[in-house]
Amino acid sequence: MSTDHGILAPAWAATGAAELVGDHALLTAMLDTEVALAEAQAELGVIPATAAAAIRAAADPVNLDPAALAEGVRETANPVVTFVGQLTAAVDPAAAEYVHRGSTSQDILDTALMLLCAATFDRITRDLLACAESLAGQVRRHRDTPMAGRTLTQHAVPVTFGLKAATWLHLVLDAVERVRRARAALPVSLGGAAGTLAAYQEYAGGDVEGTLRLPDLVAARLGLAPQSLPWHGIRTPLADAASALLVTTGALGKLAEDVLVLSRTEIGEVTEEQAPGRGASSAMPQKHNPVYATLVATAARQLPPVAVVLFQSMAVPDERSSGGWHAEWQPLRDALRIAAGAAANAARLAGALHVSPEAMAANLRLTRGAIVSERVNAVLAPTLGKVAAKRLLAAASAEAERTGADLAAALGSEVDVPAGLLDPAAYTGLSGPLADRAVARFEEVFKEFA
Amino acid sequence: MSTDHGILAPAWAATGAAELVGDHALLTAMLDTEVALAEAQAELGVIPATAAAAIRAAADPVNLDPAALAEGVRETANPVVTFVGQLTAAVDPAAAEYVHRGSTSQDILDTALMLLCAATFDRITRDLLACAESLAGQVRRHRDTPMAGRTLTQHAVPVTFGLKAATWLHLVLDAVERVRRARAALPVSLGGAAGTLAAYQEYAGGDVEGTLRLPDLVAARLGLAPQSLPWHGIRTPLADAASALLVTTGALGKLAEDVLVLSRTEIGEVTEEQAPGRGASSAMPQKHNPVYATLVATAARQLPPVAVVLFQSMAVPDERSSGGWHAEWQPLRDALRIAAGAAANAARLAGALHVSPEAMAANLRLTRGAIVSERVNAVLAPTLGKVAAKRLLAAASAEAERTGADLAAALGSEVDVPAGLLDPAAYTGLSGPLADRAVARFEEVFKEFA
Amino acid sequence: MSTDHGILAPAWAATGAAELVGDHALLTAMLDTEVALAEAQAELGVIPATAAAAIRAAADPVNLDPAALAEGVRETANPVVTFVGQLTAAVDPAAAEYVHRGSTSQDILDTALMLLCAATFDRITRDLLACAESLAGQVRRHRDTPMAGRTLTQHAVPVTFGLKAATWLHLVLDAVERVRRARAALPVSLGGAAGTLAAYQEYAGGDVEGTLRLPDLVAARLGLAPQSLPWHGIRTPLADAASALLVTTGALGKLAEDVLVLSRTEIGEVTEEQAPGRGASSAMPQKHNPVYATLVATAARQLPPVAVVLFQSMAVPDERSSGGWHAEWQPLRDALRIAAGAAANAARLAGALHVSPEAMAANLRLTRGAIVSERVNAVLAPTLGKVAAKRLLAAASAEAERTGADLAAALGSEVDVPAGLLDPAAYTGLSGPLADRAVARFEEVFKEFA
Amino acid sequence: MSTDHGILAPAWAATGAAELVGDHALLTAMLDTEVALAEAQAELGVIPATAAAAIRAAADPVNLDPAALAEGVRETANPVVTFVGQLTAAVDPAAAEYVHRGSTSQDILDTALMLLCAATFDRITRDLLACAESLAGQVRRHRDTPMAGRTLTQHAVPVTFGLKAATWLHLVLDAVERVRRARAALPVSLGGAAGTLAAYQEYAGGDVEGTLRLPDLVAARLGLAPQSLPWHGIRTPLADAASALLVTTGALGKLAEDVLVLSRTEIGEVTEEQAPGRGASSAMPQKHNPVYATLVATAARQLPPVAVVLFQSMAVPDERSSGGWHAEWQPLRDALRIAAGAAANAARLAGALHVSPEAMAANLRLTRGAIVSERVNAVLAPTLGKVAAKRLLAAASAEAERTGADLAAALGSEVDVPAGLLDPAAYTGLSGPLADRAVARFEEVFKEFA
Repeated sequence: MSTDHGILAPAWAATGAAELVGDHALLTAMLDTEVALAEAQAELGVIPATAAAAIRAAADPVNLDPAALAEGVRETANPVVTFVGQLTAAVDPAAAEYVHRGSTSQDILDTALMLLCAATFDRITRDLLACAESLAGQVRRHRDTPMAGRTLTQHAVPVTFGLKAATWLHLVLDAVERVRRARAALPVSLGGAAGTLAAYQEYAGGDVEGTLRLPDLVAARLGLAPQSLPWHGIRTPLADAASALLVTTGALGKLAEDVLVLSRTEIGEVTEEQAPGRGASSAMPQKHNPVYATLVATAARQLPPVAVVLFQSMAVPDERSSGGWHAEWQPLRDALRIAAGAAANAARLAGALHVSPEAMAANLRLTRGAIVSERVNAVLAPTLGKVAAKRLLAAASAEAERTGADLAAALGSEVDVPAGLLDPAAYTGLSGPLADRAVARFEEVFKEFA
Repeated sequence: MSTDHGILAPAWAATGAAELVGDHALLTAMLDTEVALAEAQAELGVIPATAAAAIRAAADPVNLDPAALAEGVRETANPVVTFVGQLTAAVDPAAAEYVHRGSTSQDILDTALMLLCAATFDRITRDLLACAESLAGQVRRHRDTPMAGRTLTQHAVPVTFGLKAATWLHLVLDAVERVRRARAALPVSLGGAAGTLAAYQEYAGGDVEGTLRLPDLVAARLGLAPQSLPWHGIRTPLADAASALLVTTGALGKLAEDVLVLSRTEIGEVTEEQAPGRGASSAMPQKHNPVYATLVATAARQLPPVAVVLFQSMAVPDERSSGGWHAEWQPLRDALRIAAGAAANAARLAGALHVSPEAMAANLRLTRGAIVSERVNAVLAPTLGKVAAKRLLAAASAEAERTGADLAAALGSEVDVPAGLLDPAAYTGLSGPLADRAVARFEEVFKEFA
Repeated sequence: MSTDHGILAPAWAATGAAELVGDHALLTAMLDTEVALAEAQAELGVIPATAAAAIRAAADPVNLDPAALAEGVRETANPVVTFVGQLTAAVDPAAAEYVHRGSTSQDILDTALMLLCAATFDRITRDLLACAESLAGQVRRHRDTPMAGRTLTQHAVPVTFGLKAATWLHLVLDAVERVRRARAALPVSLGGAAGTLAAYQEYAGGDVEGTLRLPDLVAARLGLAPQSLPWHGIRTPLADAASALLVTTGALGKLAEDVLVLSRTEIGEVTEEQAPGRGASSAMPQKHNPVYATLVATAARQLPPVAVVLFQSMAVPDERSSGGWHAEWQPLRDALRIAAGAAANAARLAGALHVSPEAMAANLRLTRGAIVSERVNAVLAPTLGKVAAKRLLAAASAEAERTGADLAAALGSEVDVPAGLLDPAAYTGLSGPLADRAVARFEEVFKEFA
Repeated sequence: MSTDHGILAPAWAATGAAELVGDHALLTAMLDTEVALAEAQAELGVIPATAAAAIRAAADPVNLDPAALAEGVRETANPVVTFVGQLTAAVDPAAAEYVHRGSTSQDILDTALMLLCAATFDRITRDLLACAESLAGQVRRHRDTPMAGRTLTQHAVPVTFGLKAATWLHLVLDAVERVRRARAALPVSLGGAAGTLAAYQEYAGGDVEGTLRLPDLVAARLGLAPQSLPWHGIRTPLADAASALLVTTGALGKLAEDVLVLSRTEIGEVTEEQAPGRGASSAMPQKHNPVYATLVATAARQLPPVAVVLFQSMAVPDERSSGGWHAEWQPLRDALRIAAGAAANAARLAGALHVSPEAMAANLRLTRGAIVSERVNAVLAPTLGKVAAKRLLAAASAEAERTGADLAAALGSEVDVPAGLLDPAAYTGLSGPLADRAVARFEEVFKEFA
């Protein structure tokens, strides 16, 4: 055994994400699956109710030996064979017969993994909503706070911080909706050895209708969606889960990357909340590093490659594959804890982001008017012609940059620019109404979860 | 310039997929976007209707020089600056003023890329439906054709070919639904230099309502969905498109990998249609390689890594990023043509797959009964006890394997196995009803597209 | 905290790989680094020898609280700040002053990670050599055992199992050489806050020469290579390590994928060693799944995406990046344990692989001569002409396939084929001499490590 | 057919990289391979010298129809079958017999791909050396130019621009060495249908020694390395090539990401050379975007996922796989042109990078002394104690930040800080000597190529 406390895992360390998918959670979910199976079989009259009760009574992780399960993985390529042995040994001997009846390793493990997904998706949703709520507050507060819009690293035209935060909010809501859809679709997995449910049917005395209902009953007990076909070889559920997680870290990663830029020493437009020790350096006493943004950015870098395996494992041969299925488990766990860690850290990041309208205003002045040259161009083009106007502006901007003059001065006597036209704060376009849209969407989504 | 005929691209060579996203298609889509923008602005009274007409008249790829556009990419990091220059030069001078009015490179390129997605998604859908139709035929024909179910490469328990084909069909329908959803959501992109629509508004004399309507008008003209916010920095549309494409090649890749296994010389249960020259080898006269399965398997291997870039580019700073946005274009093109090629080849693969029930029956007999040992176990367990029964069966199977005897003989006098119990064809579980489910789903989906 | 016993990690469960890079190993390596730094500084006279001794005395993982370190990661984005605090608290107060003197988090963590790489590379080398030794034995034993060569899943021309095993052996030796080269290059990391060594120099009273020597002294104490420049922002060492690990799992994955094919029920040319419980199924008593091949195949599927992050983190801004560096740690750990697990499992796989020349011979006969049609073609072409010969052979092969006749019979009276020409065992080309080459290479490499 | 001019490929558009691996280059390389094979066989007396001459005479791309080759890919899963037919048709009928004698598709295609690698590696080396030369100039010029060192986006301690450029230079030299090593190892591929060279031997009348020499002769003619074993199933050469390319874009990507940060409007320490139209925006007249840095950053983002396929294709079954081999071609082409494009653009970037020592000096003053708080800490710690000193400095830094005071003032009367200690330019540590090391390495490497 080797423990993993998260010391090398900034994406999820100390966020509680690891516990959602750790060995204890996994074993609990596997036990829950065996119990639900037994109880559903009891409901169908396939096994005695007392047997199901005995199985439930024994279904406690303390009856399992995780290290032996890991050894079992090396003997049988999955932990379920050993797991069933340990569970059976813990069950009242009179009921031992009925443990895992008609089942196969993949039924138990896939269903348990779906339960881990469910719990993690719920946690992610909670944290995304908290993050969204904080961002919605920023959008409202700074609906009309002007700042430099930056494209390809250069000042472009003015925007508002409200619109910037609206962009983040919109992304977070995209994630909420995708996670919600994926959560609702997480299916139970019950197929038996090769997806025919034959052994379940055999133990049910050949009962077709009852056996067809069995997966639905198990699903209902576990809070999962029903399956249409057994999906040992139909891995769409994992691809869908991966897609939702990818949008989650992608969305939060955008927020993080923006915060990292905006909190640069030279820019200083936003800063993470400071707390004693937070963002400290082992070397430099003055340092307050942007910690949460770094943690979230880490998650956004790590997840996409991890998810590759989940998509690739769709394309594998046989009723159940050698290596394809097995390659999914750890990446799924990784993907879940990375995304959940990102959501937890993003909620904190958004919840205490300090915004400096003063720094924004100061930076807006840095180009001495060139940031609104697009507008001046739009005003001059109808009279001067598009090409001539653009050339004039480019020359004036260049001269202003070289001489340190204002754009207005550089344009000088050549053209007559109306007063106020060069005010960056007056050229934020539809930032306000667009920001309002994001808030309205937030309110609608938030209501559905209230 | 360097041409790419697809000689190195088995995933899409000669399928027509490349043309859907080639330079000609791209330039056409960019022109369509400029025309739709001009016409929408004319509709709003922002530019003269005659100008829009002149722009439409000039919007012909023959007026563009693709090699110069590529050079433009190296000068300005995107092709739109040069493109607008070339288009403007082709427009009636009286209207030249109105080309690309208020717009920015990313508006044109992102919208054009969405148009390529739309056309490709439509083609994929058509081919997926054709593939599904062929597979549904196989499911119906072979609903009750028994064959060996294989897990971890070994014979496990019997299934039917109908269930196997149902698995493929179900996957293809999963892809159809995800592609359809992604198709419907493909949005227009209109934000102006930094997502505020400011220049559009400026040219519209400050009109807020009209400018807010502008993207909707353009979207309607192009058959795209409206945007909620400008999405220069909100890359969910690309992540969603990628997810749909990943499920497509994942689904088809499963079909291909199964065909590759089942058409192995030693297995021979399915074979691709043979045609003169098809699957020929440059060396071996006897060879009939499984070509379409190979082509589809290639696509399924290539797509997931390609898509990584699309997910990673969600997490980039600024109103428009340096490198993140630019890194999306070629991978998106690749992803589209790989998936479209896979769909075209899979339609052919499914459309002419030869199935050999005889080979299936012969292979089913290979383990001389051991393939139904699960069933015998289920019958014996209640009397012998689960552990004892499994041990007995394992020993008998091993002996049968060693001696070449039938399982029945190896079990011998020790236990009394009812006649017929060892018939693999009688132990296919719910293969039939489950296969029916897939066909029913196909019929429902097919109806919606009819 | 959440433990990870490897229950979801078939790639490395129960192989000892996890312990090489687990939290205990990491903390030990971090302590070793602080001790080596202190001792090197003492050697240079920068700190008292007694202080270095006191630091060594306190450098025991029992003095550290891993859970608190993980919490520290969430406060400061790396574990070193908290780690230094805990170590300092454990050191004799008179020496506390001298802990981590002039150092920075990245120096300690990067050096410690290199130590984990070193230990893991050594373990991998040991297991690769064991694997190679077993494979060399197979090459020698089966130098001339004919079997079907398979291309695109179809019988192509004969090969020998010796050549096949030589292919595996060659790959394993490729891995050995790349791992050895990477092992020798693993550098110490010492740069101080921004790679200038300024604080080290400051504490050394400005001594330039001594400070330049400091990294070399630390490297020597730890068994690492010297650095040329501080490499906080020069991540080639991680890319090189990743490349060696990728070749390792790629090489072993080829072996595994071949074993999975050759041990299919219908092929049966090789089988993994059987042991009680090994490869057992939770459902099917007769099953003996190819376990080690599955575990190794899993590793080969998982590693390449994991390594993506390590390559991408080369391209990050600043003296030390936000997110790029942090994203490396867990993937590096994953990559190391996946590759080490693969090597351990491959050693077992190769060490007890059962080969069936009988099955090989039987399969060689399956195409009734068509497997040597290339040879017949080569014999006929000079007289009939290349095209005519190939057409003739293709027709005869097709007829033989359709009618179940031998190729010789199908060719019939049309052509005169010399006796023996159709014997597959007589058409294995240079399989023998080529196999000898691989063995010779093995012996040379093995000698270097003896 | 669909052309690809590079309009969507900022990573390589208009750099000449695409031509190195385009269809014309590919077909030329395939023809070169057939010619070298024929000439080597003539040298061995296996075919007439006149036949080899006739094949050389016909080996002109004008005799090939690329579109038909692409169609051939869809018929036979590779272009070689059709290619050989077209070449044969162009050869003098008397020699047609001898075309492609004993060969197989993979021999021709793999060897041709190695030739493309060779040409591309040579081009990359040339451009990397040009880039290195420019960077070495920057290191020399700015050996002692102080600037802010930045870690986690925040000012940390001073460095010099010389050291920063030395970091870039060191990375470029790492790439040069890895590309050189990979270039030297690119092997010929000659194995025949299943890697036994049997058909080559058959046509050579059974000659063992001659057939073993054949690959060496072909390699020598083509300027490739010899093979040890046929490597149809030993894909280390592609993994090694991928590793070298990954280090190339990783190294150049670091340069690009740094330039993108340093050229931000607020930082302005470096700027790309300005030229008319370079970095122009379609919307904003004042814009001068960092174009080459963007192009290189794009390449660094795109390559790692592309390379995944190359590593994964090592692990495939059979003498030649279905899908694994096929999946390599287009990603290899992509990887080559992306890396070559990056090298070409990086050479331009480095060749004309404008550096502003004034902006560096101004930014160094931004934190009013806090940037040297590490040094003050090192001075105070011995007297105050490490913890007390760090606390004092943290408090003073915080106060200075809040009040806008200098660190010296904030420290005030509490401590006595020697004059000059707060001068950032006096705290660049070993930046100078370390920069010298990189230049010395450059000179050594450069000499080897001169």
